[in-house]
Parts: sequence; C-alpha cells; structure tokens
Amino acid sequence: MAGIRDVARLAGVSTATVTRALRDEPSVAPKTKERVRAAALRLDYVPSAAARALSQGHSTLLGLFVPDIVNPFYAEVAQGMEDRAAEARFHCVIASSHLNRERERQLLTSLQDGTLAGLAATTVGTDEAFTQALSAMPGPLVLVDRRPRGLKAPLVRTDNRKVTREAIRGLFEMGHTRIAMISGPQDFDTACQRLSGFRMAHRDAGVRVTEQLVRHGHLGETGGHQAMTELLAMDPRPTAVFCFNNLVTVGALKAIREAGLAIPADISLLAFDDMSLFPLVDPPITAIAQPAYEMGRAAAEILLRQLAGETGIDDRVLPATLIPRASLGPPR
Amino acid sequence: MAGIRDVARLAGVSTATVTRALRDEPSVAPKTKERVRAAALRLDYVPSAAARALSQGHSTLLGLFVPDIVNPFYAEVAQGMEDRAAEARFHCVIASSHLNRERERQLLTSLQDGTLAGLAATTVGTDEAFTQALSAMPGPLVLVDRRPRGLKAPLVRTDNRKVTREAIRGLFEMGHTRIAMISGPQDFDTACQRLSGFRMAHRDAGVRVTEQLVRHGHLGETGGHQAMTELLAMDPRPTAVFCFNNLVTVGALKAIREAGLAIPADISLLAFDDMSLFPLVDPPITAIAQPAYEMGRAAAEILLRQLAGETGIDDRVLPATLIPRASLGPPR
Repeated sequence: MAGIRDVARLAGVSTATVTRALRDEPSVAPKTKERVRAAALRLDYVPSAAARALSQGHSTLLGLFVPDIVNPFYAEVAQGMEDRAAEARFHCVIASSHLNRERERQLLTSLQDGTLAGLAATTVGTDEAFTQALSAMPGPLVLVDRRPRGLKAPLVRTDNRKVTREAIRGLFEMGHTRIAMISGPQDFDTACQRLSGFRMAHRDAGVRVTEQLVRHGHLGETGGHQAMTELLAMDPRPTAVFCFNNLVTVGALKAIREAGLAIPADISLLAFDDMSLFPLVDPPITAIAQPAYEMGRAAAEILLRQLAGETGIDDRVLPATLIPRASLGPPR
Repeated sequence: MAGIRDVARLAGVSTATVTRALRDEPSVAPKTKERVRAAALRLDYVPSAAARALSQGHSTLLGLFVPDIVNPFYAEVAQGMEDRAAEARFHCVIASSHLNRERERQLLTSLQDGTLAGLAATTVGTDEAFTQALSAMPGPLVLVDRRPRGLKAPLVRTDNRKVTREAIRGLFEMGHTRIAMISGPQDFDTACQRLSGFRMAHRDAGVRVTEQLVRHGHLGETGGHQAMTELLAMDPRPTAVFCFNNLVTVGALKAIREAGLAIPADISLLAFDDMSLFPLVDPPITAIAQPAYEMGRAAAEILLRQLAGETGIDDRVLPATLIPRASLGPPR
C-alpha cells in the first residue's frame, strides 16, 4: 500500500502539506489540495485512520445499513465493504431492516451513541424525519445504490438509466413491442432511474409505453410473483418482461413456470442484478449485473477518506454490464 | 404474546415466583423452577428484557457472528434472528468474518466493550485462544450451527447426522455404490456430523467408504468446483456426489456442467442446505433443507431468555428435511 511519502512525492509537496490538504485545512491553496487528492486517489492512499481512531479511543467499526440481507446484492456489497475496511484495520457490522421503515429508524437510533465510526446506507426510508435521523448519525455517511430525497452525502451507484435503456433497446431490436416492467416502490430512486431508462428506450424506438404493463411497488419474490401473475392474465399478454431487481425476477420466473409458459418462446425475461445461479437456471437468465462487491469497496473507501478529513467527495458511478444468456429471444 | 400472569396461572404459582424461577434464584425449589420454565416455554413467554435493559442504560443490540454473509443460509438465520429480536424490541447487527479467523478474532475484540447485549455465533475459529475470546464477550452467548471445541453455551442446530444418513441411504437404494462426498474443514463439527451420517449409511448398506471419494476442507463455490473437478478426473468416477453445503454444491454443479456431464444420468447430485433457485436449476437440485429462519428465531429466543436471567438452557435441535427434486437418479 502507498504511504504518505509516496503521495507527497507524486504531488510535489511535503508530507505535512499532504496531511493538511487531505484535512481540507484553509492554509492549503485549493490547487495544491486538488493535486494532493489526485495523487492520493491515483495511489489508492488512505491515511491510517484506524491507528488514529484507536489512539484517540474512537471506534473502528463501520456500519452498513441494508434493506434486506437475504438479497445477495447487499450481501456482496457487505463483503466488498468488509474487505476494504479490513485493509485499513477497520471492521464492519451490518444491520438489515427487512424492508421495515420503522425498524430501520429504531436501528439508527440505537446506533447514534458513537458505536460506529461511519455509516454506509442503503435505506428504505424516504420521508423527512428519516432523512433527519440519518443526518444525525455521528461520523461520516456514504449512500449506496439509492439516495433518499434531500439527503446530502456521497453516493455510490451504477448507471441505472443508461444500462437499462440499452438493454431494453435490445428487446425492441428482437421485435418486441409489448414489453412489461415489474418495478419497485416509486419513491426508490433506483426504481425511478430504471423505469426512466425503460421509457427512454421506448421513445428511442418510437413505441408508446403501455402504462398497464408497468407494475409499481413490487419487492421480493412475493412481489415479483404477484406482478407476473397479473401480467400473464392480460390479453394480449406482454412478450417480454423486465424485472427491476433479482428477487423480483425469481418470483416472476416461478410464476411463468407455474403458468406452463416457455422462456423465451412465450415470454422473454430480463433481470436487473445478477445471481450466482442465474447461469444454471433453465433457461439461463440474461441479467444486468451491478458490480456489487466493488460498490461495497468504494463505499468503505469513501468513509475512510472522510475519516481522514477529506471533504467534498464526489458521487461514484460504477458501470453495470448486460450479461447475455438464454432468456431473451424474438417474440412468436 | 403471553404475559407473566399467563405463565403464573399455567404453572400454578405467583408472578413473583415466576420472576425468581426464571432468574434461577436459589429460593425457588428445583421442581417449581422446572414447572415455571415449562409453562414459559409452552406459552412462548419472554420477560420484557428490552424494557429492563433500556431502563438500566444497557444495550438492546444483539450481535450475530457469521462466517460468510454471502451464503444465503446465514442471511436467513439473520432474518429469523432480527424478526424475533424485533418482537422483544431488540435489534441486531451482523458481523461476517468472510471465513477469515484473524478477522473474526479482531471483530470479537472490537465488540468486547458492551456494545452488544448478547451474541449469537457461528464461527470459523476453533482453537483455544479463540474459544477464550468468545467466552470473554460480555452478556449471554448462543451458538448457531456449530460448536467450537470446549465451548459451553446453548447451541441451535439441526440433526445433521440423522438426516444425512437417511438421504445417503436413498442413494444406495437407487443402486449407487460409488458415492463421493465434498466435505468441509475437519475441525467444523457440522462437516464431521454430516460425514458421520455419510459413513453410517455406508455401514447400513454394507459398503466400505472409498476414502479417495471423500474430499475434506472445501468451502465456497471455488472449493466445490475444485473438489468436483478432481472427482470427475477419477477412473472410475463416482456415480453420485453429496455436497456438505449450498455454495459447495453450486461450485460442483458448475464443474459438472463444464465437463459436459448430465445430471442425474452421468452423476447424481445431493446438496446439504437449500437455495431459493435450486428448484429452477436445470435439473432442479435435491437438497436437505435446514430451517435457517427458524434457527435464527431460536437463537434470538435463547438470548432473550438468558437476558431475562434464565440459566441452564438446553441445546435446541431442529429437524432438517430432504426435498426430493430431479438431481438424483439410478446410476447408468
């Protein structure tokens, strides 16, 4: 790992200036700060925040709030965060609200006592009281995946809109025109961004979105199963369906199986978020894979930089990738 | 939920005696204590430990230590524990060591300050120093799935040996005689118990275990993939394989696919631990399902009872169930 000397050398300043620059002290000129931050970023340098925190009797425990630890996306985010934290001798604890906003708020309250040195959060709460509770947490905050309205903190996310737009364009190119989407709660910005990409692809193709084919507010296997069952009861039914996350996809898949329909001959299925078993399902499921592990690492990285005194950290947008498998095909 | 009056009525004692009995105070006769505990158990009664802890300024945070949060078994245990804890107004945080013993030890140390009111642990550490670190945690302890050698605390587990013995017997009845097992580290008692069931089924069938067909020390997809690749290179190769957990099964499945072999015609595949996608894999995977969610609930329940002053709590053994799907068949 790079040390403070390496950063000083690359930036052409003293090690003392590196320290002051990364703490955003006013005595350092803005241009110098910029140079030091660029050098630190390039060398992947993080000051030994753990050593400092410990010597001052502070916590070296980072928290990760997730809505549902049974969703492997969050488990992988957790793993990335733990691994990056461990490199800096920090540790992580995970708190899962099981998609329950009241439980999430209580959890936040129970951890407001300085137990955590910093918090990474993917939350289900969206109202103002919740945003205030989150802002009231001591220590730095980083958001993962989603930004509750009005909350100012660096965010780690993927390019939801762009990757969805391209994937849906692929469905139009195959000849689909009746494409459904099983979406999440309308106050989740991820759901909104994916839906926005879905709409943009329709506009690109000159096809009007059939609003009945867009199902809002679904979460988990149960939500996906219910929405898919409703979609399959429509006449004419959609020839393709896009699920806004992995567990919703599993539920939709089970509903399609139960209806005795073939994928992709009767209906094409596209998932947002990959799962380790999607390649082994019959048929293998085409998915938009988010770099969940890397997102967790980036979240820890941002917390460590904030703990080192860095401010004004930008959002981090990581690319998601469409992984073509066998669940998409031309309509009959 | 049952209250202290219900317990007192059922046990035929005063509410004060219920309180004293559950705190194991010497002033209560052993027979009375037994009657009170039986009544509390039957009514699913837990005193309001949260209320008491809060009024005394104590933590209402329970900890769950798991080796690998990416394994959905532990995520489901976590969910069960969170749900049960929430009913008593306690909250949970999860710490995952990513199968790293050193990280696990450091995590334990970082939480020895009273942050947690109690700890549920499935650990990878097995040596004496580790056992001591675990015993040194303040507050009650419950073990989940595995017992590190020499550690005295109530354990929540499934009947690993029995269910494995029966499942392997089924393979013999189908006509298999060359049955392989991909097992875990030899110092995990779960791996030992499942291996013991595997050996017992061989004895029942009068077939000697081919030691080369038993692969020790494998964990995760990578471990399963490697072990399966080695097994498939043997001549003659096994006609059936039993994987000691879910992620090992996923790795084995991928290796069988890569080798171009058909399940179950070329090789039967049996998993310990179910996964939500196993029914949708080609072919659907036969699995021994542990009641992971219920195990998490039971762990929280035991911690709450200990926090209420109850002592001498027995191990809790929950039944696992063989779920027949399509990955087992007679050998060619």
